[in-house]
Amino acid sequence: MPPRGEYSQRRRRLAAELERRKLDAVIVTALPNIRYLSGFTGSNAALLATAAGDAVLFTDPRYQIQAADEADCRVRVVKGSLLKALLETARRKGLCRLGFEAQRLSFAEHEMLRAGLWLGAWLEPQTGLIEDLRMVKSPAELEAIRGAMQIASRAFCEALCIARPGVLEIELAAEIEYRMRRLGAEKPAFDSIVLGGARTALPHARAGREPLRANELVLVDVGAVKAGYSSDMTRMAFLGRPDERVKRLYEAVREAQQAALEAVRPGLAADVVDRAARRLLAGHGLERAFVHSTGHGLGLEIHEAPRLGKGERLRLAAGMVVTVEPGAYLEGFGGVRIEDTIVVTSNGCEILTPASKELLAL
Amino acid sequence: MPPRGEYSQRRRRLAAELERRKLDAVIVTALPNIRYLSGFTGSNAALLATAAGDAVLFTDPRYQIQAADEADCRVRVVKGSLLKALLETARRKGLCRLGFEAQRLSFAEHEMLRAGLWLGAWLEPQTGLIEDLRMVKSPAELEAIRGAMQIASRAFCEALCIARPGVLEIELAAEIEYRMRRLGAEKPAFDSIVLGGARTALPHARAGREPLRANELVLVDVGAVKAGYSSDMTRMAFLGRPDERVKRLYEAVREAQQAALEAVRPGLAADVVDRAARRLLAGHGLERAFVHSTGHGLGLEIHEAPRLGKGERLRLAAGMVVTVEPGAYLEGFGGVRIEDTIVVTSNGCEILTPASKELLAL
Repeated sequence: MPPRGEYSQRRRRLAAELERRKLDAVIVTALPNIRYLSGFTGSNAALLATAAGDAVLFTDPRYQIQAADEADCRVRVVKGSLLKALLETARRKGLCRLGFEAQRLSFAEHEMLRAGLWLGAWLEPQTGLIEDLRMVKSPAELEAIRGAMQIASRAFCEALCIARPGVLEIELAAEIEYRMRRLGAEKPAFDSIVLGGARTALPHARAGREPLRANELVLVDVGAVKAGYSSDMTRMAFLGRPDERVKRLYEAVREAQQAALEAVRPGLAADVVDRAARRLLAGHGLERAFVHSTGHGLGLEIHEAPRLGKGERLRLAAGMVVTVEPGAYLEGFGGVRIEDTIVVTSNGCEILTPASKELLAL
Repeated sequence: MPPRGEYSQRRRRLAAELERRKLDAVIVTALPNIRYLSGFTGSNAALLATAAGDAVLFTDPRYQIQAADEADCRVRVVKGSLLKALLETARRKGLCRLGFEAQRLSFAEHEMLRAGLWLGAWLEPQTGLIEDLRMVKSPAELEAIRGAMQIASRAFCEALCIARPGVLEIELAAEIEYRMRRLGAEKPAFDSIVLGGARTALPHARAGREPLRANELVLVDVGAVKAGYSSDMTRMAFLGRPDERVKRLYEAVREAQQAALEAVRPGLAADVVDRAARRLLAGHGLERAFVHSTGHGLGLEIHEAPRLGKGERLRLAAGMVVTVEPGAYLEGFGGVRIEDTIVVTSNGCEILTPASKELLAL
């Protein structure tokens, strides 16, 4: 829970941005953005936030009690269409220039809004309006992410005791998730990834019913949610004594991750971090084996702005929380990824993931 | 995994519907619909499905290996915009009348599609095109849901052994989820709901760090995912000996659930089931305490068509899988919900949730 006053402070920052964009109000439909601005965590809501800094939350009768409890703004419980009720309120308040979340509102919802407009009102598509505000985290948000990261890291370390040949990928995943829960997580931040052997070369496969095997790599990519905020980490283990090829692959990725971490600095463009990792891997002939971006922001969602990828010109700023996770994947052989969650500081970054980055030989 | 040929059979049914709607093809962007038509389970994809019954899947390089492995159709791995690549393919194939998923495509994605259209091509918003096909489940799909339901039910029954005063809601949730995983679930079907005492009156709150207490109700609403398919159930327990008011509330909801189950029959409108539950609760003076619909379809998503709610005229058909879950919520006192996952049969319904429906006194 952020301290009292944090929600209204966020709405004031939004209001200033609405002024700048010459909007009277914005129709917020993305649930994480609604939570960010009001504290409400239900699964059905819309929010009208105005350039005067106030807000009205619309939800359905299932959430009557919960909304009254959670929301730090006026609440209207509506039977039927939330968007219709929202437009009615906007009209009554004399709000005409209405922004909406172009990447979050469906085509059909937009049609419905358009059909409900009165003369003199219009809709203006907005991109990143609230997402941009969310990039720099407050102390309370950082605290939640730090807690979520500690939980995931500790659960990972504890659960390793069951990792041995014959254990299924999903059994290790279940063990980690169970321990995360016991340590206070609300849930896993995403479908936990536990992969063994050649399957480690599938960068986004999930844990399956495959057994871990002796003398093979194990990739574990997990995160926890605490107080609504996510964490994310990837570590590698080897069931036995890794041979030279595995060690070289691991060291190359580790060097790339270190180079990326060292490249983080406020004021620099986000793609500088990506290039640092890519350059290092290219030096090992692994550039084509690195098939994703170096990292992504996280917070109320597991993937947020900024993206640390090619061509991302956005400037890093102190308080942004991102992952740094280069990897190299060799089809048929296996892959290595090493991932920390970090926060950008005034002169570099702080790593929030406490787990060791050695290749764990189990 | 559905048997070989099931995906192409689904695409043929879609093709017939495209013919009927006079479309050359549909641009599929909802991930569960993409999975339904191709088998691909990755998190970034678009699918072009034509009235001739063929399909091309577009995804990014992270999923190269996985897509080749899973997709039962042509695959194109694309760097950059999937929708642009898809339009290019549509153009080359001479497809002009292009449907898109109006409720699944964002306003911004639609703008991008529109900007990429060539002369002579146009976009037509579609609603429920693939969702309607998904309502009636195949034997393979039913098998998956049945498995998912058995896992959730068994995990719930096993985990009850730890339920006693002092145990936190999230601890019981963690125990159930851990056992689901051990029993072969891929993950929980949704954020598990475990609530105690007056919190049972919050129909959609999640498990929190509140302890269960003696002489209070416990509500458990959980589901598992198996082979991509979801299950959903709610059961009630009481830590001690329930008093008369609790017993009466429980019996009222149980009768309402039974009435709803008995109302299920192919050919009837879906709201008939809702009315059966509502009428029963009204007889106990509880109509206003029942603040949600009686049920919802489920399958590749936890909420699918049809909805068993007021005014829903869609006709039930054999093979549809839905929940039946009336409830009554009294603020400050507590709530009761009883929920089964069922399949509509040729003459009524089969209950897929094996767990007992007694109010469990623990």
